[in-house]
Amino acid sequence: MSVLCRFIRSRAHRLPIVNIARSIGGASTEYFAVTYEEHGDPMKVLEGKTLTFETDPSSLNSNEVYLRMLAAPINPADINMIQGVYPVKLTLPLIAGFDGIGEVLSVGSAVKSFQSGDWVVPNAVSRTSIGTWRTHTVCEEENLWKIPNDIPLLSAATLAVNPCTAYRMLTDFVDLGKGDVVIQNGSNSAVGQAVIQIAAAMGLQTVNIVRDRPNNEIIVKWLIDMGATHVITQEFAHSPEMKMLMGTMRQPKLALNCVGGKGIADILKYMERKSTMVTYGGMSKRPLMVPTGSFIFNDVRLRGFWMSQWNKEHVNSPERREMWHYLCGLVRKGRLFPPIYRTVPLEHFKDGIKRTMEPYTTQKQILVMDKSLL
Amino acid sequence: MSVLCRFIRSRAHRLPIVNIARSIGGASTEYFAVTYEEHGDPMKVLEGKTLTFETDPSSLNSNEVYLRMLAAPINPADINMIQGVYPVKLTLPLIAGFDGIGEVLSVGSAVKSFQSGDWVVPNAVSRTSIGTWRTHTVCEEENLWKIPNDIPLLSAATLAVNPCTAYRMLTDFVDLGKGDVVIQNGSNSAVGQAVIQIAAAMGLQTVNIVRDRPNNEIIVKWLIDMGATHVITQEFAHSPEMKMLMGTMRQPKLALNCVGGKGIADILKYMERKSTMVTYGGMSKRPLMVPTGSFIFNDVRLRGFWMSQWNKEHVNSPERREMWHYLCGLVRKGRLFPPIYRTVPLEHFKDGIKRTMEPYTTQKQILVMDKSLL
Repeated sequence: MSVLCRFIRSRAHRLPIVNIARSIGGASTEYFAVTYEEHGDPMKVLEGKTLTFETDPSSLNSNEVYLRMLAAPINPADINMIQGVYPVKLTLPLIAGFDGIGEVLSVGSAVKSFQSGDWVVPNAVSRTSIGTWRTHTVCEEENLWKIPNDIPLLSAATLAVNPCTAYRMLTDFVDLGKGDVVIQNGSNSAVGQAVIQIAAAMGLQTVNIVRDRPNNEIIVKWLIDMGATHVITQEFAHSPEMKMLMGTMRQPKLALNCVGGKGIADILKYMERKSTMVTYGGMSKRPLMVPTGSFIFNDVRLRGFWMSQWNKEHVNSPERREMWHYLCGLVRKGRLFPPIYRTVPLEHFKDGIKRTMEPYTTQKQILVMDKSLL
Repeated sequence: MSVLCRFIRSRAHRLPIVNIARSIGGASTEYFAVTYEEHGDPMKVLEGKTLTFETDPSSLNSNEVYLRMLAAPINPADINMIQGVYPVKLTLPLIAGFDGIGEVLSVGSAVKSFQSGDWVVPNAVSRTSIGTWRTHTVCEEENLWKIPNDIPLLSAATLAVNPCTAYRMLTDFVDLGKGDVVIQNGSNSAVGQAVIQIAAAMGLQTVNIVRDRPNNEIIVKWLIDMGATHVITQEFAHSPEMKMLMGTMRQPKLALNCVGGKGIADILKYMERKSTMVTYGGMSKRPLMVPTGSFIFNDVRLRGFWMSQWNKEHVNSPERREMWHYLCGLVRKGRLFPPIYRTVPLEHFKDGIKRTMEPYTTQKQILVMDKSLL
């Protein structure tokens, strides 16, 4: 694992960054933000702008928090939101970015949950949006969730959506014990990588399907190094050899799907009776094609998961605190790393968008707001 | 309802039947049966034969029951079994028929559950097979399930698979209260007709989708007369007008699917958040095409149901007794009738098979073993 991580870190690409927010009297009155006024191709509609706070952030309302954003990953939901195909509809113009980490600079007089120096993430990631792709913001207290600030910055910046999704899917749908098998597709996605690492930490075995692509051996090596039990291609999953592989282990109790399409049948045919497939993404843009017999004769159950809905239903819940405690614990133990990534200075956001939208991309683009953090 | 039923009954087609079992000394030593020695087209592989019991049924083993079959519906599972595409594999040659009703003629010395004159159905319909398409049989006690013999014969003959499936699907998956909405496709199937009647008795509303076909107005009238709230075509379900119709009622909490294919999306888009679709058949022979967003953003759950598996897991359970009590109660109250049917003397089974396999067939073919019963 450590070898992999050094490797990944050495691959991080660092562009020069300038301090783009102007500071006056301890608080910036201006900030830089990635904005859009209409839905469409992110490469065309996104625009970097220097904006001015309506009121000086040194004089906050009592329930407000002033923060500087530190880093923000570019997730598929961000792209879909900008394109206008995300089911959450918000009024435009908007500042882009659902996910990311900020540092509290100052708080209003009635704010109890946060103090200067705390790290925070959006409270209901990707349902409402605080617009994380910016240097500074002022938020109401209820829109933020405090996380530990003793873990690496890029771990903190990438926990709230993808590893939390992975953790919940491994926890909330079926009872899994040591040695049980989880099968997933899109395994090189950020969630997929988190599933591999968290499942390994839980003593689970994972069968990880990736798309057939050029240079697949690199992806396979990465995922194996992360703790994947098996990494196979969609082509292999569809072949007769798949049966032999699946015969060497317990039948999967849980399948995780972020691809959809015809490959669903290749997974379901090996699932245990009464097992569950959880869908959290649809990268193929095709509906799941589910054989009738899987439902009737194998009693498989198909469910869905959406992290932001879970957060909405579990604000300040013990389950949410336990999840963060567990995931930060894994990070500290060196068992959960950020997804394979590349940092991009915020002002070069279009470079990050471009890379995110390339086919077969595995590398997570993480926008970083201050070069001194790298 | 009574009008409909008279109408249906008057449509029953009655072919002449001869008594085909020879009776010697109170018990038949010979019986007539519909057999097959290899899988294939039912019209080709099925053969009517006069067979002889290995031992005289007047001298039963202690745990055996001797019965005469009274009537047996031809269900899709029977056709699939004969074709060899049913997932339960049994050794050939076989006597066909999973479902149907028999009358106990005599019992072995240790049999406690049955006595002469009782009505029985197969205990684990369509998992193992006692071969119901015959005039007489000798079974072990554990393979039979006693049902009331004070209800009409053709109701009794058609309760064990289709209305039981309908009842369980309406009962076991979501909590439904008066006025709640159930949506189903293949609504003119035998299960679909039972769903309409049972749901109406439970105070539920039903939206019933049928295939676009010639003379649809007849089917629509039948289903409305049975208690359907709305009967619509697949074409309508796919049209913008569907939204207006669905806007007039609560969002469905439960969907029942026996068709599969693309039409699944037309149903799911109107379902309530966290609602459930239960699949019990696949008449289109196409996989369910399920939009990813239904899982993620509407948290719908897809499940399957198989009556014979349920029976296997609930042999002699209170739930099973309660179900039969409830369904026979509905029959007695005139709220649950056999599916739209046509009786066929057993010896003319090929005529029933042919009708069953015709496209757009709604009429359930019921094999009857003794013309005096009609």
